[in-house]
Amino acid sequence: MKLDLFDKYIYIGRRHQLKQNMGQDGLILLLGNEDSSMNYKDNTYLFRQDSSFLYYFGLDVPVLAAIIDTDSGEEVIFGNELTIDDIVWTGTLPTVSEMASMVGVDKTKPYADIARYVHKALTDGRKVHILPPYRPENKIKLAEWFNTSLNDLADHVSLKLTKAVIAQRVIKSPLEVAEMEKAVNISVDMMQAVIKHTRPGIKEYELVAKAHEVAIANDARLGYPAIITTHGQTLHTHYYGNTLQEGRMVLSDIGAENAMHYGGDLTRTFPVGKTFTQEQKELYEVVLNSMDHAIGMLKPGTRYKDIHLAACQKLVEGLKQVGLMKGDAAEAVAAGAHTMFFQCGLGHMLGMDTHDMEDLGEQYVGYTDKLKKETSIFGLKSLRLGRELQAGFVLTIEPGIYIIPELIDRLQAEKMYTEFINYDMLNTYRDFGGIRIEDNFLITDDGYQLLGKYLPKSLKEIEALKN
Amino acid sequence: MKLDLFDKYIYIGRRHQLKQNMGQDGLILLLGNEDSSMNYKDNTYLFRQDSSFLYYFGLDVPVLAAIIDTDSGEEVIFGNELTIDDIVWTGTLPTVSEMASMVGVDKTKPYADIARYVHKALTDGRKVHILPPYRPENKIKLAEWFNTSLNDLADHVSLKLTKAVIAQRVIKSPLEVAEMEKAVNISVDMMQAVIKHTRPGIKEYELVAKAHEVAIANDARLGYPAIITTHGQTLHTHYYGNTLQEGRMVLSDIGAENAMHYGGDLTRTFPVGKTFTQEQKELYEVVLNSMDHAIGMLKPGTRYKDIHLAACQKLVEGLKQVGLMKGDAAEAVAAGAHTMFFQCGLGHMLGMDTHDMEDLGEQYVGYTDKLKKETSIFGLKSLRLGRELQAGFVLTIEPGIYIIPELIDRLQAEKMYTEFINYDMLNTYRDFGGIRIEDNFLITDDGYQLLGKYLPKSLKEIEALKN
Repeated sequence: MKLDLFDKYIYIGRRHQLKQNMGQDGLILLLGNEDSSMNYKDNTYLFRQDSSFLYYFGLDVPVLAAIIDTDSGEEVIFGNELTIDDIVWTGTLPTVSEMASMVGVDKTKPYADIARYVHKALTDGRKVHILPPYRPENKIKLAEWFNTSLNDLADHVSLKLTKAVIAQRVIKSPLEVAEMEKAVNISVDMMQAVIKHTRPGIKEYELVAKAHEVAIANDARLGYPAIITTHGQTLHTHYYGNTLQEGRMVLSDIGAENAMHYGGDLTRTFPVGKTFTQEQKELYEVVLNSMDHAIGMLKPGTRYKDIHLAACQKLVEGLKQVGLMKGDAAEAVAAGAHTMFFQCGLGHMLGMDTHDMEDLGEQYVGYTDKLKKETSIFGLKSLRLGRELQAGFVLTIEPGIYIIPELIDRLQAEKMYTEFINYDMLNTYRDFGGIRIEDNFLITDDGYQLLGKYLPKSLKEIEALKN
Repeated sequence: MKLDLFDKYIYIGRRHQLKQNMGQDGLILLLGNEDSSMNYKDNTYLFRQDSSFLYYFGLDVPVLAAIIDTDSGEEVIFGNELTIDDIVWTGTLPTVSEMASMVGVDKTKPYADIARYVHKALTDGRKVHILPPYRPENKIKLAEWFNTSLNDLADHVSLKLTKAVIAQRVIKSPLEVAEMEKAVNISVDMMQAVIKHTRPGIKEYELVAKAHEVAIANDARLGYPAIITTHGQTLHTHYYGNTLQEGRMVLSDIGAENAMHYGGDLTRTFPVGKTFTQEQKELYEVVLNSMDHAIGMLKPGTRYKDIHLAACQKLVEGLKQVGLMKGDAAEAVAAGAHTMFFQCGLGHMLGMDTHDMEDLGEQYVGYTDKLKKETSIFGLKSLRLGRELQAGFVLTIEPGIYIIPELIDRLQAEKMYTEFINYDMLNTYRDFGGIRIEDNFLITDDGYQLLGKYLPKSLKEIEALKN
């Protein structure tokens, strides 16, 4: 078995920087993931290592953990060696110390030693910094090591470490950008295969099959569950049983995660048949104009929240032209009336995680101490990114229009936004579905750069792919 | 969204039978699964419902649980209704009570009510029967509801319920067999696609891609991680990065899990190029003869352990003809010398789980109170099935020959089996790899039936697929 790794000095450098940022302040404990069981313990999902563990220690193997002593500088990787039974069943691997040396760590210990290591540090009155756990098995272990209850475990999470990790991971190095370009390029190939395979009469899952085939055949996987649906109004549907019908559109939101676990995240919306209908074309153009406007605003120093709001205003202006909205566009956005059509945020950070570092907390990744996330305003509460952009950020732009009958019924019954929404016309669009268009961007010193190769997005280009 | 379900009377009947088997003896608590997180909480693997929950309650939706009161006969499904946010993000679903009525249950309650329900029963001195949990999140919940520690949770598992569930699930009904035939047929299509796609120069993962494509395009998934490898000697390898080289073989062990979550489990071993080498042909025939011999023994009343041992003896006889083993075949098997080549068991029960009901305990599924599993003898400790066969069992037959260099080195150094193994010759086979051939069978009243359509397995048939 081969381990995909950057040069060991990359990892040494990242840990050096982390130690600098933390100062002499006790231990940092970074926990790798275990395998996750499907329907019985030994039948497991495809292993996914924790992204922060990958970032600092690179090793893509289950049941590892690492400690960085910020006082002494010592680094230890904890793991168990294979038995002969393991070798018979799952093959050989480098030893733990061989793996450790691949990422520049000299010292290793058996996994079971972590408990003692943590106990001792706590007994000595030292801090043990941990990140917020998101896997239940890791919560169980941490609660045991910290001798606390699962409910109180959150009190032991280190905000200082969380912020230090985010500060590093949020700026992508050229090496990381190169990996992300690979992932986006595979994602583009997946999307082209899906679009070309789309035709009336087949099932959505036949398109999902194509996406997986292209990803896996490129030594990648899907970084998140595919959204490939004729019910594009449902933002994150993972039901694939509908039959494709002439006249409808498919919304496909898919992304490859490459061997190094960097991801792409692309969306296209295209007709089941060879051409869009006139109604579809009109709303598609509204979304595309909003997207292009948002892209044009990408540069260091601009707040993403402002780009989001500008994109929303562009959507409203377009929807007014179509006749679905009315009144003053800026006032409509200020009132939140656009959320009838666009219920979510314009985009998010992208990296090893599709919603990059979501486990560490959106309020720290996408916002700052000064700019807090709105948690109660529909629309803004789903905006995962708001802060000022910096060179090295990688993010998505993904405006959309989603016609959700249940939302129309609810808001109309509550007489919401009556001065901005043309309910009579909107009710004739109840079965329209949804449109989203999404690409990935690197923020550069003076603007932005599209990540990966170009994926057709104009009406003409999309139709050309189908003909 | 559509729920794939049998007729509700199937589930009512199964629960009725379970109540009969348990008698009036308190509550039965069956826990459905939750979504499992990959790299952050909301980025989840493809949901897999618990198989016993599916068997009795059919509902393929996360975060459900059910209680059967064996005294009053009452049945309750616990679950949470969707909010408008859920509908925007993940679409509509039937309400919990609508879902419950689809499987013949009248009463529903919010999920949070389970804790009170269990507390009250325990306070009243009633039993609450649970199955062994295998997911960490379910362990956490159960420990809380039973007011016990995670370490002591095993004491609360009900062996009586475990055995009652096994007694039902182990005999497959005609309806279940029909689902399994569908799953095997998809698995056959997957294998044919993989074999036909195999050629020198490509990567193993390109074959894995084909398997996934065919499964998903048939509204199925892989029931277990694909084993598709040129290192067939590693029984359960999930590394797919090797390049296929002319002269080597590919071992492909793959199975579809269909929409109703019944699975197939097939293995074929075939050349990377168009033909097997002479050496490969010889050992392939040894495995195939062993397999055919074992299949011929399948009938009610025969102990699977005896079939396993007979298959081992056939392997030894074949290996003697090739020259890799020597001495008396029966004595070799009694001494365990065949485990140099065949380290595992001949097969296992198959159903909704690939190793059917492995979560409930192999010692109860594959063995009986009289015939216990050998837990310390290499070879037999990996025999998942030993008991007398009964009509309605579905199982695999999968003999193999695996040349594991690490095992040769270890056993030769220990001077093990020197009277049965020709180490000089064996060391010339160190890079041979492994061969496994596997099909699925239903035990009938008077013998057996191959499940699903025929998948080529003779040398000639396999080579014909490649030409």
